[in-house]
Amino acid sequence: MSSKVHYLDHAAATPLDERVIAAMRPYLTDVFYNPSASYGGGRQARQALEEARQMIALILGVKAYDIVFTAGATESVHLALEGVLKGGGHAVVGATEHAAVRAAVEPYEHSVARADKRGVVTAAAVRVALRDDTGVVSVGLADSEFGVIQPMREIAAVVDEERRRRHEAGSVVPLYFHSDGSQAAIALDLKVSRLGLDMLSLNSAKCYGPKQTGILWLKPSVRLAPLMGGGGQERGLRSGTENVASAIGFAHALQLVQKRRHNETKRLGELRKALVEPLLAALPDLVVDGHPKRQLPGHVHLHLDGLDAERVVFHLDNKGICIATGAACAANKATRSPALEAVGLSPTEADGSLRLSLGHLNQLEDMPYVASQIIEAIKTERSL
Amino acid sequence: MSSKVHYLDHAAATPLDERVIAAMRPYLTDVFYNPSASYGGGRQARQALEEARQMIALILGVKAYDIVFTAGATESVHLALEGVLKGGGHAVVGATEHAAVRAAVEPYEHSVARADKRGVVTAAAVRVALRDDTGVVSVGLADSEFGVIQPMREIAAVVDEERRRRHEAGSVVPLYFHSDGSQAAIALDLKVSRLGLDMLSLNSAKCYGPKQTGILWLKPSVRLAPLMGGGGQERGLRSGTENVASAIGFAHALQLVQKRRHNETKRLGELRKALVEPLLAALPDLVVDGHPKRQLPGHVHLHLDGLDAERVVFHLDNKGICIATGAACAANKATRSPALEAVGLSPTEADGSLRLSLGHLNQLEDMPYVASQIIEAIKTERSL
Repeated sequence: MSSKVHYLDHAAATPLDERVIAAMRPYLTDVFYNPSASYGGGRQARQALEEARQMIALILGVKAYDIVFTAGATESVHLALEGVLKGGGHAVVGATEHAAVRAAVEPYEHSVARADKRGVVTAAAVRVALRDDTGVVSVGLADSEFGVIQPMREIAAVVDEERRRRHEAGSVVPLYFHSDGSQAAIALDLKVSRLGLDMLSLNSAKCYGPKQTGILWLKPSVRLAPLMGGGGQERGLRSGTENVASAIGFAHALQLVQKRRHNETKRLGELRKALVEPLLAALPDLVVDGHPKRQLPGHVHLHLDGLDAERVVFHLDNKGICIATGAACAANKATRSPALEAVGLSPTEADGSLRLSLGHLNQLEDMPYVASQIIEAIKTERSL
Repeated sequence: MSSKVHYLDHAAATPLDERVIAAMRPYLTDVFYNPSASYGGGRQARQALEEARQMIALILGVKAYDIVFTAGATESVHLALEGVLKGGGHAVVGATEHAAVRAAVEPYEHSVARADKRGVVTAAAVRVALRDDTGVVSVGLADSEFGVIQPMREIAAVVDEERRRRHEAGSVVPLYFHSDGSQAAIALDLKVSRLGLDMLSLNSAKCYGPKQTGILWLKPSVRLAPLMGGGGQERGLRSGTENVASAIGFAHALQLVQKRRHNETKRLGELRKALVEPLLAALPDLVVDGHPKRQLPGHVHLHLDGLDAERVVFHLDNKGICIATGAACAANKATRSPALEAVGLSPTEADGSLRLSLGHLNQLEDMPYVASQIIEAIKTERSL
């Protein structure tokens, strides 16, 4: 038995790259100043914040001005969705969206766009859910449970079609397309014009940056009501003294993952194969969820009807292997994730589901050991 | 001319203590795990988060369970106030409250409790502003502009009296007393029972901890609607993966400032005297605002009718002296702070006002130089 820890939960949290910490460090110590201050130190902090914004803008192919720093994707998503919905109107959200997206639209009129069995929220499903008063559509670039990459351009085309229809019908109700890119930033191209988006939320903590840091990018035409007022920072859209160190950290982390995303996608694809193939060979009734092709490279969702997945996670923890059940980032584990039901998993299938998410901390040579331990844990658990 | 930087803007931002960075470091690197994860690393992160909560609870004299970590005081204040007001009702806020407090109550029914000329929001002023449907009263422990320490216990007594009146009148409308302690945490006792509070917001960034980190303490009896839903972290009151490193950093920072607060109060009082006396001697029409006794030790607010304070700040910046005009933490400098008007400052007095806030980075021996430079800058500016 190896005493090494094998971390397969990169979808829940990622370690900070040393280069990211190094980039943050001056802003934790010497350049601690308030970016709103007019003296030299304040201007230096302001400049760093704007550099971070510019770094992220380049990756998204947008103007830096249109990026708002937030305290994480939960806040970004609430700002994007509630920022529209507070003014009235209806929302459409994908059936496999993160709990933060569901919670943000919960107090407002909203519809859920269905996911198919492979976890894809099709453009057709979005079209069906649209109403005359829909103000915002939100479908993540990839969901956090299955890691299924959603058809952004097709959904954007449906949104565009609806806008044209409204224009021709003389309606002036605006319609925005928002996406939560938290899970996908490590693997996908984030150029928003190619994706066809009006708003994009990103989360530093999922791409090897500091926690509780995120951004919301919004097209200049998007009008949002802020969640929190006060000092008027971030163009009045996010008051509170800016977290310069974390903004810098996030910008560097995003730049690093985006630079290596092609290589990392290839590498993680190989790891995924080396992990999943032995599992399927040894456990014939194990089912890999999600889509065979539209899949984040390091993301594996599995289910085995009747398995007690929580106990498997505990078994594996004792072997130094860190994996998750269902929706692992949620603090409230008592409720089953609606995403699992949305793709047709029964309650016993949902309770028997595991999420393995590979990343920087995993190496190909470790996959046989990890796979063998997962097989053993599942077999042990089933024989009890 | 000294090439050293003299930082007199501790009310806007504070540097991180090296011990705080050291305490944070493991949670930025090795223990990066999601505290909601059930494996060993997740439990370790959870334990650290709960230790941080416990450290702060001891300082406040409360149960750890009743402390919610937030992404800063702006968020804490919004959670406290909007969390009550979303359910209906009216708010009373002090006239010198921070912009975040004013912004939080802005969309709701609210009244402003007047401040006297010395910046004190008296219990009588709060009593006058109360209505039958007031749900929350918010007066900061000390304001951010004048640094005036507010009469918490007297205000708490008025709140209590109103509760008794309601009880006797058969009213079941709850009334909570909230305070923003961001500026005061470096100097005052934070035992909430002595202060007579139901809710207290604190800000890490103002007490030598990391930015965009804060807490809201709330009495078990207080019922709040969350600002943001999602993963259900922080008892459902603040969703989003927890920022363990910053929570730990804040707890250590708060513990450090609270341990040294008596000594630091004495030390800063001496510095303040060494700074202010030569200013008043050299500039007879200079006025020190605030209260002669109820004053944060390192906080000095001055005004000189007709002075262009912004230009003085620029002059001093060139001499390596960092000070602020009016409401320095606000990104929107175009609007005059309502707090200045509230204490009776005319527009030309407000525009001629400076805030000097002393802290860890200041030493007694530097005060004569700093004072002489401020005098010179003001004299130069007036002679133009």
